[in-house]
Formats: sequence, C-alpha cells, structure tokens
Amino acid sequence: MTTARQLQALLDGPHAALRAETRARLSQLGLEKGDGLARDDYRDLVLEWAREIGRAGDGARSFPVAYGGQDDPGGRIATFQTLGHGDLSLLVKMGVQFGLFGGAVHRLGTDKHHAAYLRDVGTLDLPGCFAMSESGHGSDVRSIRTQARYDAEAGEFVLHTPDETARKDWIGNAARHARLAAVFAQLDVAGEAQGVHAFLVPIRHLDGSVVEGVEIEDCGEKMGLQGVDNGRLRFNAVRIPRDNLLDRFGTVSPDGIYSSPVSSPGARFFTMIGALVEGRICIGGAGLAVARNALTIAVRWGERRRQFGTGLDMDTPLMDYLTHQRRLLPAVCQSYALQAAHDHLTQSYVDVLRTGEGQREVEALAAGLKAVATWHMVDAVQQSRECCGAKGYLTENRFASLRADSDVFVTFEGDNTVLMQLVAKTLLSDYAAQFEDLDAVGMVRHLTTRQAGRVLEDLGRSFKRADLHDPQWQTTALEFREDRLVDALARRLRTLVKAGTDPLRALSQCQDHALAAARAHVERHVHQLFRAKATTPLLEQVRNLAVLSTIESDRAWWLEHGFLSADASRDLQKQVNVLCADLRPHALILVAGFGIPDALLRAPIAVDPQTGGAGSD
Amino acid sequence: MTTARQLQALLDGPHAALRAETRARLSQLGLEKGDGLARDDYRDLVLEWAREIGRAGDGARSFPVAYGGQDDPGGRIATFQTLGHGDLSLLVKMGVQFGLFGGAVHRLGTDKHHAAYLRDVGTLDLPGCFAMSESGHGSDVRSIRTQARYDAEAGEFVLHTPDETARKDWIGNAARHARLAAVFAQLDVAGEAQGVHAFLVPIRHLDGSVVEGVEIEDCGEKMGLQGVDNGRLRFNAVRIPRDNLLDRFGTVSPDGIYSSPVSSPGARFFTMIGALVEGRICIGGAGLAVARNALTIAVRWGERRRQFGTGLDMDTPLMDYLTHQRRLLPAVCQSYALQAAHDHLTQSYVDVLRTGEGQREVEALAAGLKAVATWHMVDAVQQSRECCGAKGYLTENRFASLRADSDVFVTFEGDNTVLMQLVAKTLLSDYAAQFEDLDAVGMVRHLTTRQAGRVLEDLGRSFKRADLHDPQWQTTALEFREDRLVDALARRLRTLVKAGTDPLRALSQCQDHALAAARAHVERHVHQLFRAKATTPLLEQVRNLAVLSTIESDRAWWLEHGFLSADASRDLQKQVNVLCADLRPHALILVAGFGIPDALLRAPIAVDPQTGGAGSD
Repeated sequence: MTTARQLQALLDGPHAALRAETRARLSQLGLEKGDGLARDDYRDLVLEWAREIGRAGDGARSFPVAYGGQDDPGGRIATFQTLGHGDLSLLVKMGVQFGLFGGAVHRLGTDKHHAAYLRDVGTLDLPGCFAMSESGHGSDVRSIRTQARYDAEAGEFVLHTPDETARKDWIGNAARHARLAAVFAQLDVAGEAQGVHAFLVPIRHLDGSVVEGVEIEDCGEKMGLQGVDNGRLRFNAVRIPRDNLLDRFGTVSPDGIYSSPVSSPGARFFTMIGALVEGRICIGGAGLAVARNALTIAVRWGERRRQFGTGLDMDTPLMDYLTHQRRLLPAVCQSYALQAAHDHLTQSYVDVLRTGEGQREVEALAAGLKAVATWHMVDAVQQSRECCGAKGYLTENRFASLRADSDVFVTFEGDNTVLMQLVAKTLLSDYAAQFEDLDAVGMVRHLTTRQAGRVLEDLGRSFKRADLHDPQWQTTALEFREDRLVDALARRLRTLVKAGTDPLRALSQCQDHALAAARAHVERHVHQLFRAKATTPLLEQVRNLAVLSTIESDRAWWLEHGFLSADASRDLQKQVNVLCADLRPHALILVAGFGIPDALLRAPIAVDPQTGGAGSD
Repeated sequence: MTTARQLQALLDGPHAALRAETRARLSQLGLEKGDGLARDDYRDLVLEWAREIGRAGDGARSFPVAYGGQDDPGGRIATFQTLGHGDLSLLVKMGVQFGLFGGAVHRLGTDKHHAAYLRDVGTLDLPGCFAMSESGHGSDVRSIRTQARYDAEAGEFVLHTPDETARKDWIGNAARHARLAAVFAQLDVAGEAQGVHAFLVPIRHLDGSVVEGVEIEDCGEKMGLQGVDNGRLRFNAVRIPRDNLLDRFGTVSPDGIYSSPVSSPGARFFTMIGALVEGRICIGGAGLAVARNALTIAVRWGERRRQFGTGLDMDTPLMDYLTHQRRLLPAVCQSYALQAAHDHLTQSYVDVLRTGEGQREVEALAAGLKAVATWHMVDAVQQSRECCGAKGYLTENRFASLRADSDVFVTFEGDNTVLMQLVAKTLLSDYAAQFEDLDAVGMVRHLTTRQAGRVLEDLGRSFKRADLHDPQWQTTALEFREDRLVDALARRLRTLVKAGTDPLRALSQCQDHALAAARAHVERHVHQLFRAKATTPLLEQVRNLAVLSTIESDRAWWLEHGFLSADASRDLQKQVNVLCADLRPHALILVAGFGIPDALLRAPIAVDPQTGGAGSD
C-alpha cells in the first residue's frame, strides 16, 4: 500500500526539507491578506512577502556563499516550484528579483558586481528588474534594439531607446519598486556592433524618484498577477559608468577596446540568453504546482459533492462518474510523471552550471518541458474548474485567480509554440549530426535496428492487451513515434530545400510537423524518466494511466503508422477507462501526495473529506 | 468574390435589422463606463443599461402584443446573441430579467399574471429573479426541495426552506435588485405531493427593504460577471396569495383541489422545465458571439503583428505562420458553421412554441448545441488569447473579461457534460423507437442500407483526395460515425442490462461512449445545416475547413472503424494545412463578416488594419 507520505516524498525529491520549510513559511504569511487589496497596496504587500521569504534563504539561495548565498541553484528551483502553490504574484515577483535580475548580476557579472550588489539583491534591499523584452520583438532576443554606445572620452556607456518598438516592455518590478535594471542592449564600441550585452542602469533613487533620462510607465491592468508591477522603460541617452557593463562574456577597456573570452558573437549571444533557461525551468515547475492546486480542489470536491437524481444512486459522489474520472485522473497521473522530468531537468541544469557541458540539451529540454508543463496546467485548471461547476466559479474557491494569474505562463519566458520549434530545431540538429556519414539506406537501417522492425513484427497478430501495461511496450510506442516524426521531418525539409525552398520557409511549411515531433520527444522523455520512478503497484498504475492517456489522445498517429491496429486502439481506450476505475479509490491519496496545505489551497470546497481539512503537511 | 457584407448577411440571418439596431444601441451605451467600477456601482449601471435596452424593445420582445410585446421570440433570441458581443454582465442580467423571470411569468403563468406583471417586467419597472437552482442539487430540477404547502383556510401558499441544501443559490438579480421571485418548489396540497411548480414570491419592497420571512445573501465574489447580483434565498414560512401560483400547467382551487391540464406529474415536470430550453438556446448563441469577439481580436492582431527574426522574412505577419493559422482559422470556420445550426434551432424552437410539436427534439438540440457552442467558445477564447501573447494578457485587450465572464457558460443553464448525456439519452430513445420491431439482423441490415456498405466499398482502393472536398463524402463520414456510435452504445447497454446491470449504472459505465455519440450527433447536424448555406466558393472552403478539422481531431475513430485508411487520414491532415493556406488571405474578410463594431470589441490591438478601425458596421 503506497501512502500519501510516500507519494509526497517522491514528488518532493531531494529537496524535501527545503520544500517543507517553504510550505510552512508560505502558510504563515497569511496569503488571504492579499485578497481584494487595492493594486498598489497589494504590490507593496507582495514586496514585503518577497523580502520575508527572500531573507529566510530563498533570495540568495543560488548565489555564492561569499555573498550570503548557499550556492544551491537546485534548491532554489525546488523552493520556487513550491511557491507555485501559493500566491502567484509573489512567485513571479521573486522570480524577477532573485532569478532574473539576481541571475543576470550573478551569471553575467563578475566579482566586482557580485561584491557590490549580490548581498543586497538577495535580501531585497536592492530591488531590481530584468529589462530584456521590447515592444517590437517577440521571443527573439537577437532583435533587441536598445542602444548602448561606449563613450571612451567619458568612460561611460550611453543607453538609448531609439523608438517605440525598442522600449522595454513587460518588465516585472519596473513600474513601482526596482531601483536598478539589468538592461539588455546592442553594444556599440567605436562604431562596431558587438551584439547584445547586459548593463546595470539605475532607474530610481533611494527615495523612489525616477532617475533623469529614464521614463517609466505602468503596463496597465492585467488579466492576473496584479501584485506584480510590470512596466515599460525608455532611456534617453542615459549615462552609466563603464563598470556597469556585466562583463563576464565581453568587456570594454577604458580606452574602448572590446574583448571577449567567447570567440564568436553568435556564441556570446547564446551564452547571454542562457540566463533565460533557469527562468523557463522555474516556470515549468511552477506550472506543475498550479495544476496540482487545481486538481486537488477538484478531486476533493468531486469526492464530497453528491449528484442527486441524475445517475446511479441518490448519493453518488461525482468522482464515481466515468466522465469525471476521465477529466481529472489522467491529469493527476501526468502531474506525477511530469515532476520526474522536472526533477531530472533541474539536476541536469545544475550539472551544466558545474561542468559547463550539455548546455544545448538542457536548453532544449527546458524549452520543451516549460511548454508541455504549462499547457498541461491550462488544461488541468480548466477541467478542474468545470468539474466544480458553479462552486468553481466563486472567487473563494480559487480557480479565478489560479487561472488568471497562471495563464501568462504559456506565453511568457518564451511563447510555448516558439519554444516547441526550438525543441524541433535541436532534434533536427541531433538528427543531422547522427546521420552525417549515413546515406538514406544507412538511415533506414539504423531506424530498423533501433526498433521499427521489431515493432512492426510485434503488431497485429501478436499484440496482446497485456502489452499496454508493459513499460517496455509503452517506451517502444513513444520512441517509435518520436523517431518516425523526426526522421520524416528531416526528409521533408531536405526535399524542400533541395528543391530550392529557403530553409526558414521550409521549416515554416512544416511547422505543425515540427510541433508534433517536439511534443513526441518531450512525451517520450517524460515517460522514460517517470518509468524509473514508478516502483510500487500504485505508481505503476499511475504510469500506465499517464502514458496510455497520452497515447490515446494522439492514437490516430499510431494507427496511421501501422503501430496500433484498430482493435488495439480500441483496447487502449478501454484500458484507460479500466485504469480510471482502478485508480478512482486512490484519488484522494494521489492528491494528498501533492502535499498542499489547506492554508495554501484556500478553497472552502477543498476541505479534505478524510482529514476534515487538516491537510497532509 | 464573397464580401464581408455578404458574410455578415449570412450570419445575421432573418433578424439582420434587429441585430443592427442592437449593435448600434450597444455601441452607444458607452460600455467602457463599466470598467473598473466598484461592484455595486457596476451592478446598478448594468441595471440601467438593461432598462435602456429593454425599453427600446428587447425587454418584451417575446411577450404578447397586448402587454407591450412583439410576440417575437425568434427576434429576442437573435438580439440576445448580438448582446453577446458587448458587456456579458448586461447580457446575463437581461437574460435573467426578460428571459428567465419574464419567461416564467409568460410561459408558466396565465392571463391574470400576464395582465398584472408582464408590462412592468418588460420595462424593468419590476425587477425579478428566477429562483430554481438550490445548493443541494446539481442540474436536476426534480430534486428541488423548497416547500410550497397550500393552506386552504387562509387561501395561501406557504413557501419554506427546510434546510441549507434547499436554499436557492446562484439566483441572478436576487442579491440587489429583484422585487419579485419566480420560485420553484414542491407543491403540497392537502398532504399530496403534486411535483415542482413555480410561485411568485415578493422578496423586496419598493424601497428595497427585504420582505419579512425572506433571507437574502450575496453569493460572493465571482470569477467574472461582477455586474450580475447573484444571491441566495431562504424562505421562512413565507405566505403568498393563491393567485401567485403560476398555474398554466396546474392550479389549486380555493378549497384546495388540485387540477392540471397535463395528465401525469412526469409530463407536468417536463413542461415546467421547458422554460430552460430558451435559456440554453440563448447561452449557446451568446457563446458563439463571445468566440467571434476573441477570434476577431486575434486575427486582426495576427495580421498587424510582425514576428521579427525567428521565421521567414524580417517582416512576416503572425498570420502567415501555419501554427497560427491552425489555431485560429478552423475556429473561425466553425463559427460560421455553428451559426447555421443556431439559426435553425431558433426557428425550430419558435415552431414548437407555435405548434406545440417537436418539443423533445428541440430540447435535445438545444442541450447539445449549448454544450458544443460553449466548449467551442472556451477553446477559441483561449487560443486567441495565447495567439496575442503578452498583449492578450493586458486587460485593455479584453481577453481577461471575455474569458472570466463567459467561463460559467459551460456549467450554467445545465452543465455541458450533463447536457450531452441528455442528448445521448434522446438518441437512444429514437434508436429504440426506430428499431422497436427489428431484431439484431434487421438492425445491421438497416445500417448497411443507409450507408455502411457503400462506405466500406468506397474505401481504400477508391478513396481519392478530392473526396475530402466533396460535401457528400463529408456528410457520409459524419453520418457513419454517428450511426455506428449510437448503434454500438445501444448494443452495449442492452448487453449490460440483459446481464443484470441496473440501467442507470449501465449508462454510467458507458458515459464516455454516450458523450462521443452525442458529440457525433451534434457535429453531423451542424455540418448538415451549414452545408446548405455554403453556396459560394469561399463558403465552400469555410465548410471544408470546418468539417475536415472536425474529422481530423477525431480521425482515430474513422481509422478504427475502417472508414479512413492510414493514407487517407494523412491526406486529410495535409488538406487541413492546404485549406489554412488557402483561407489565410481571407482571414480579415472572414472576421469582418462577424460584423462586430470596434465600440464593442474595445481592444486596442484589434484596430482593423484595413479600415483603420472603422469596423464594418
């Protein structure tokens, strides 16, 4: 018998103690104090909260020990995810201050910057912002148009916003609190373009007044996250000292000579946007936390709420209905599976920071998992809301803020669709590298060797219903799809390009194919990681429902490619129903394993019917 | 060349003039005055607006001419849908006052009630509410537990709330404005239960004070629709005159003899909830309007917004990307298709009111179309929001309110999942009636005759890509799925029941199957109706994309049932891409055809790039 505590231990992973601390601290903040506050008051309260949580350790957790930190980026990512169970404005505010702004100073700056700023960043004595996005460009940092010209005579950089499309936009912390901004701009030294670099630009004085030459405006009312002061920044020939260039990857000597330890501007750029990777990992993780809040509320209500009259007995809990199970239980199981991938990604990222190796793979995974996790979140929140009917529409039951606050996760820190194309591009590069020396025949042989032959032989005659529960069959199914999609995509592109199509245009023509390949890759990856964690009978069922519902939703693909026969496909659907019925008695345990205290759920309808609301933490 | 004006004429249908009036009137209200108001002020403003629009004709439009009305329920349904382009609190407030409350007085009352109330209901001099829902029951009106006992001595009914589960909940207009409530309660005459009836119960005096014995509280903050004062009502032995029974379908004589023109309590009940049908038709229609607002904003922004750097040329509108087209254009086409079904349903409903025939079919269609239309709305609004990125997250661009206000559409006036089961039950009854005299062999023969034989013969060898564009092929595909699903569902149920399973439990075990059958039915029906309207080359393409994207999303089903070969299924997906590319140049025209004035869209990013914002109305 797997207990809720064992499940929670699995989800909490190596940072269980830190997560427990964060939950306790969040629970004591009194998050209800934010409800219904006027915007500015709420923003100031969120700043206070961020300071409190920050000073308790989260602010500097990933910073060097010498500057008050703990040199523990993995711990920071774990506690950030845990914050996702609470107030999402607080989450984002902390992400901006400690992750993006602090991360820029830490990762793009050098000792002088660390010494001057990191301690105050970590305690929130120095509120700052991360001024990368501009109004005119979407997700492509290369297109940044803010100017940073070096004036050798004065030994200063001159930051300037040439026009409206270059104004910094959506900058969290900018509209009300930040004193210092990490501004991304195109560096021009003696007329030569050196690409995007980051500069520390004071934007407010200690008394809150705005620095001359800087213009700040509020982005205006948002769908959610009212506690985050997103703003727009314009610079009118603002001068900053030479030392304010964050110069780890490129520096300018007093007399105006540019030098960089990174050879090409392309590679420099790549290093620069590495700062975004941690943000994407964090948002993906937080998305999973938000989904778990929603699912916990819906499952508990589904257990309490009786549906009179329209069904079975007069007294049937909603959770007994197949449609209800199908809307909630696969998502509950996905929550477990996705967490395994999130934990692995966190560890891989920490390894990259330590060794400097494997960066490209982690960037692609961070992008893909952020997209898949936050889309999962949107679906889970919507289904959960609908499953709670009118009760779910009441603000007090939290779906209003869960959804409004989290919705932007799918488009910020990289739009999900764009991120998935980035994944596809990485898959294509890997594919090209792998087959560099192979001709078409060689490629086919490779694929056949890996699995295709065995698979097609397994098919039809030999398919047994029991295969669906066999983790090796599940893995093979997901690998088969990924390999075929990537292979077919590469061939399509090659054909188009050979016929004279511009490569970018060719990729655009295959965009839906590229997205499918990227999703297949991420889903296979998630399954592979969760498979290793599914070590008890209950978790095996969780794995089965997670993977079979994934295959079910795209089962047409396997039918089209001869992997599933019509009968097998119908069996698959039946097995999803069977698994829903089998897991239904464990629904409360599975959400208890999410370990979200009632003080964070804050939904009257989510009082745990077994504990009477005591929660599991 | 199909013009935007022709498209709009198609959508506006027979009530084009009324719709134009409504658009003009809505545009002149100054809807922006509601933005950011305190809740009570906003509610009072919405009441004012409702009064203004009501007095201009909409309030009494479906009432008899003798009471200031126009006896035009079809016109009312059309203008209600048009209101869906504006403020949704106003929409719902009007729905409650004129549709639900007014509808109850009109359809369940008799001359004495019409004479006493209808004129004041239509002008909103008498604000009222429709007190049906109770806290303890979900969507099943039969479970209502409010009591109405006839006291023959006093000649009065005594309305009473026995406990908390019987309190009236979510009653629009109750928390602040209503003076009179149409209360649904179990009638008890001399100790005999006569089933659910509606009673007019005064709840507030003219000065706004609450009537003695009535308790009113506000439901509390909601996700959206802040301009609607939803409340809870409790009755503590409240006495009302005998005449306050709305007695069209059942009356009580002064000395306490119950009589009814409707024979059985079951049939009476059925007649009683007929009042809900018009509400469902209206909400389905409004959902389509909301979806069109969202799609118009997203398509216009997709046309204006250039994506720098990540794709094709430096200056490529988002709408040129296949993923963007795939997210928006099928939904745009569905909007056209669904409107055809909504118009047909409206006309069928009007016919039922006139002739008294065909009620059951209309009830099922109203349920099914409400569910499909509002789920379409949820998807369209979410996709549109995501397609607008950060801009879509700004409140000024309207997605925040479009979504928060409309989200409850999927669960109120009947939860969508429950409504779809109602559709399935109707399909099963029709099926049973049809095959009453047939044995299994006869049934198979019937299906074979209708199409299955031909279809399976058409398959494989003879399938041509051109078939996908053939409306007859499209119809056959959708009919094939519907017939097979209903047939298989009926057989499964029969087998289960024969084996001793309780019929309700059997239906519960097949719930996903029932939902699939219901959806197949509605989608076939929608296609059939739009097919007849798709009379220009552009509209044929709209039909093709609407139906092929519908089939694509469930193509696994056709693969599993031998209707689509793997090659045909892949062809289908390619054709969806081709149709997206073909319709892409017409995207602006297609949303211009929605005919939504800029004063109603109220989204800065939706300034029409061709008209500079003049809109099309």
